[in-house]
Amino acid sequence: MEAKENSSTKARVEILDHGWVELQDMLGSDTDIVCAARTSYLGENKGEDRDKKLLFSLMEHGHGAPFETAVFRFRLRAPVLVWWQLVRHRIASYDLQSGRYVQLQDDFYEPVLWRTDDGESLFGEVALDFDAKLAAYYDISRTLYQEALDEGISKELARLFLPGFAVYYIGVWTVNARSLMNFMKLRMDLHAQKEIRDYAWVIYEDFFKPNLPWTAEAFERYVLKLEEEL
Amino acid sequence: MEAKENSSTKARVEILDHGWVELQDMLGSDTDIVCAARTSYLGENKGEDRDKKLLFSLMEHGHGAPFETAVFRFRLRAPVLVWWQLVRHRIASYDLQSGRYVQLQDDFYEPVLWRTDDGESLFGEVALDFDAKLAAYYDISRTLYQEALDEGISKELARLFLPGFAVYYIGVWTVNARSLMNFMKLRMDLHAQKEIRDYAWVIYEDFFKPNLPWTAEAFERYVLKLEEEL
Amino acid sequence: MEAKENSSTKARVEILDHGWVELQDMLGSDTDIVCAARTSYLGENKGEDRDKKLLFSLMEHGHGAPFETAVFRFRLRAPVLVWWQLVRHRIASYDLQSGRYVQLQDDFYEPVLWRTDDGESLFGEVALDFDAKLAAYYDISRTLYQEALDEGISKELARLFLPGFAVYYIGVWTVNARSLMNFMKLRMDLHAQKEIRDYAWVIYEDFFKPNLPWTAEAFERYVLKLEEEL
Amino acid sequence: MEAKENSSTKARVEILDHGWVELQDMLGSDTDIVCAARTSYLGENKGEDRDKKLLFSLMEHGHGAPFETAVFRFRLRAPVLVWWQLVRHRIASYDLQSGRYVQLQDDFYEPVLWRTDDGESLFGEVALDFDAKLAAYYDISRTLYQEALDEGISKELARLFLPGFAVYYIGVWTVNARSLMNFMKLRMDLHAQKEIRDYAWVIYEDFFKPNLPWTAEAFERYVLKLEEEL
Repeated sequence: MEAKENSSTKARVEILDHGWVELQDMLGSDTDIVCAARTSYLGENKGEDRDKKLLFSLMEHGHGAPFETAVFRFRLRAPVLVWWQLVRHRIASYDLQSGRYVQLQDDFYEPVLWRTDDGESLFGEVALDFDAKLAAYYDISRTLYQEALDEGISKELARLFLPGFAVYYIGVWTVNARSLMNFMKLRMDLHAQKEIRDYAWVIYEDFFKPNLPWTAEAFERYVLKLEEEL
Repeated sequence: MEAKENSSTKARVEILDHGWVELQDMLGSDTDIVCAARTSYLGENKGEDRDKKLLFSLMEHGHGAPFETAVFRFRLRAPVLVWWQLVRHRIASYDLQSGRYVQLQDDFYEPVLWRTDDGESLFGEVALDFDAKLAAYYDISRTLYQEALDEGISKELARLFLPGFAVYYIGVWTVNARSLMNFMKLRMDLHAQKEIRDYAWVIYEDFFKPNLPWTAEAFERYVLKLEEEL
Repeated sequence: MEAKENSSTKARVEILDHGWVELQDMLGSDTDIVCAARTSYLGENKGEDRDKKLLFSLMEHGHGAPFETAVFRFRLRAPVLVWWQLVRHRIASYDLQSGRYVQLQDDFYEPVLWRTDDGESLFGEVALDFDAKLAAYYDISRTLYQEALDEGISKELARLFLPGFAVYYIGVWTVNARSLMNFMKLRMDLHAQKEIRDYAWVIYEDFFKPNLPWTAEAFERYVLKLEEEL
Repeated sequence: MEAKENSSTKARVEILDHGWVELQDMLGSDTDIVCAARTSYLGENKGEDRDKKLLFSLMEHGHGAPFETAVFRFRLRAPVLVWWQLVRHRIASYDLQSGRYVQLQDDFYEPVLWRTDDGESLFGEVALDFDAKLAAYYDISRTLYQEALDEGISKELARLFLPGFAVYYIGVWTVNARSLMNFMKLRMDLHAQKEIRDYAWVIYEDFFKPNLPWTAEAFERYVLKLEEEL
């Protein structure tokens, strides 16, 4: 359980222009995962070396069940763009801010760089031009949303006047380590959209790795296969 | 299996201004549900009367497992407003259009009536005014989205220029009858947002009820409790 | 988080003749559940009275999602009779002892009372007679299982010589509070088999209630409806 | 939908000494899977060659969602030995015969060969000896179970007198193609217990392959990697 005491619990990591991730709390450690796996054999934990070796072997052979005994509870703020993809991960629990009951905040997401479909960045005049256009579009949206609310239009309809994909929502995400590794594998990948990739990497580097260091090392070796790519 | 042959498969029902639902295909019937339930007792189906009675008793006592043997596969077109709530139902399968790989269509959702938070409708000048404002906002959005695409900005970022909650997406939704009843219970309710309520009622009246008539009758009696409310 | 420090973590409660339940660790508290629910409204926790009132209202109206943020990890020893029903609860994680890789223990389950299908108990000669018959049957089983193993028959086949439903298995069970309440509702019920009912009540009284006291109180009122029955 | 009409629906395949599998009904076809995948791109089906190529690419890159649109409903009879492992697959629906409400049948499973832990078979005297011992043990069990029932002991307790792992249960199993492929990958493997392997292979060869031939071919190539092993 030591990992837990050293954990980054409650520390907030900023992402994008107005987003962040916090680890509210977590259940379990590398040792607990090994302990759950040893249940099959009624075995006891056997010292650091053999425990770590067993954990690596679980990851290598795709024995996912023991990793379900570790559970993370994150609180995060992300644009709909990111949540839209995140909530599709079904083996997890979500408690999300409501756009029907709360006025949405108007600090919409503005990308630092404009990317093409090939992942190139636009620079110069064109980029500056679209920065300005986005800022203006967001201003119009803010005004219209507020006007609609002021005239008594429901929050659930007023949000039609919003740049929906750019609106930040706050939510609590409770997810076990197995399902989280599936998320990270897919969303840390270069083919994932940059915005969710940023969240996936922060979750991995700042929260997953410090709390489950052996699992992270095995995940890099057998799932991400980082070594092979060097 | 007769229900299946008479089923509304492939017929499309229009919803909202540009949405629709189709039942692509389905698995199972009321009789199959009874048959699955009788497995517990190794019983055979016993004629219509006793079969129907058993099905009603399953619903009354919350024995949900047999209802999982019937599965619907819908294809539907709905604004993000609706999908945003729909995809939160985790016991189901989703294949959804991608806004990263396909240009989104610009027939954004326009409500017929502007509602207040209390569910009242706005009429007269104010309503007409916001109709006009929404149309204008959608025009600006269309122009900006297209400009961004024309300049080579990726589809995944260009959509920041869209009224996200109003954009229509097409998706395939595969869901068993138990999970679907949970969806319908929550989303046919008066507290649900009107837009998703429209989808829930169409799904119920046009697809669920004709294909699982006994289940629908029992659902009305024991879950919706429609009779009590009269 | 105070609840956690006072929790019965690691204390073992004995059940049946050779079974037990331990709470290895848990995530979350009543306050965390309220906090997750308040995310919808971006609200802060508001003092004990209003927090408790909100939690009761969640339970009353069937808003289950916030209860998924609390997760229990039990380690338990139970006869197959009990596990056979327990593993059917699919929204949970299981790490179970293997009968293929470990020799099964021979302290088979012996009921204290012989029940009839109506739940009456048998007494006198008949009961004593079956106690003796069961003991003898278990002795034969022990001998045959051991003989089979001694002759080199695999553990996975030798167990055909065992009274399978009476064999104790150890397992780790990780389950969130929402899914656990569903389990307890079904298995604390008088219609559940007495053996699993014993586990369900211990889990409720010794682990669930001390760790989530508000949730337990609301569960009794709105789900078990204990008050109404008085 | 042609696959469906040619399908082996209702044909029963015998397994082990007293077990069998039937495909009661199914939803979907290879073409439906391709169609669901094309939803992402709003594409239409494009003729057999390009459809098959797309399906292979989904399998190669682990895009599992479209395979969830095909659903099988099996009815099967298997010993507890097999069910014990089968019900651990949580993404599926189960309606299983009850040992509390129905008298269990006494045609217990008898293996054709006695295997060692290394997978070798025992022959000669020893094997014959254990065949006889098993037959005798089963006879004792039959007698005791019947005596217990005759004296009024409940079915749920009388089964303590049974060789639990050898008792056959009938159940309905509704499972989508993605989850089924996960089952088949694990249980067709040489490391799986022979008894469940027999079920997995029948399910694959007799039901999965004829109904989803492209999916089966891709599954062999990218998941089972059968070619590589030659």
